[in-house]
Amino acid sequence: MQWLQYVREIPDFPEPGVLFRDILPVLAHPDGLAEIVQELEALIRPWQPEVIMAPEARGFLLAGPLAFSLNVGLVAVRKPGKLPAPVIDEAYTLEYGENHLQMEAGLPLAGKRVVIVDDVLATGGTVAAAARLAHRAGAEVVGFAFLIELVSLQGRSRLSSEVPVGALTAL
Amino acid sequence: MQWLQYVREIPDFPEPGVLFRDILPVLAHPDGLAEIVQELEALIRPWQPEVIMAPEARGFLLAGPLAFSLNVGLVAVRKPGKLPAPVIDEAYTLEYGENHLQMEAGLPLAGKRVVIVDDVLATGGTVAAAARLAHRAGAEVVGFAFLIELVSLQGRSRLSSEVPVGALTAL
Repeated sequence: MQWLQYVREIPDFPEPGVLFRDILPVLAHPDGLAEIVQELEALIRPWQPEVIMAPEARGFLLAGPLAFSLNVGLVAVRKPGKLPAPVIDEAYTLEYGENHLQMEAGLPLAGKRVVIVDDVLATGGTVAAAARLAHRAGAEVVGFAFLIELVSLQGRSRLSSEVPVGALTAL
Repeated sequence: MQWLQYVREIPDFPEPGVLFRDILPVLAHPDGLAEIVQELEALIRPWQPEVIMAPEARGFLLAGPLAFSLNVGLVAVRKPGKLPAPVIDEAYTLEYGENHLQMEAGLPLAGKRVVIVDDVLATGGTVAAAARLAHRAGAEVVGFAFLIELVSLQGRSRLSSEVPVGALTAL
């Protein structure tokens, strides 16, 4: 299958002016899930990750299979109030608003090679905050991987120029 | 490893009186993620699922690797406001409050064998609502699988007695 044809485009969601790309119809097809995970794995494997990290919640759907397939750890970063204390907190601005991202303190991340995964690279604020959380836990961010990069939003400019950024497709 | 020893217990989170079981430290260890996914897969495979369905957000972390490993579809059910229209909506009562659960309409679920997965079976309200969503989409729910069952909360009593319910451990 061609997974991209199953991505649904929804105008003005969740805010006016945003064209939302919905990946859930891709995942509901077994061939779609397998295809995107295999393609993401091929992208990520050369970076030799030891941990896959993802922001909630759609990122979790991709990070789980990737971490399992690569046999590495899986770290979930979440919105405020979802994780029990103690947490590490970072503020970020999103395509549609401002928020905080949190990660549990005490996870085994010191010295680990971390790849950050999400479905869509928009302005990059969320994954940049996730990278700051990883750094504060002593990890090294060795890559960012996405299904879809929205090139016009220039998300790459918010990520470190020394770390590879990959996407399966650019729109 | 023994994954259960990495589950953290947090009293009075997210509400007073609730003893929260935190599975994220398990997932951060590569051996932990592999172990629980393999054990869940052994539980689920005899039910011959065609789709794995999970409520957000911790359920996503388990459902993704399971669906990928079993080579079946993955369906995310979400809290209100997260999914673009059209959605199917079900109300449910939770251990700590009331909420709604939504699933995208139009996913390829008609006639499919669905297994519903979550980290913890507490009162069962969330997964019972997920099962109603599956039924309304024409699917057959053929099992419920959890890492941890909190036996004293009697969640099984809210699930159909004709559908198998499994958990890797009971507390």
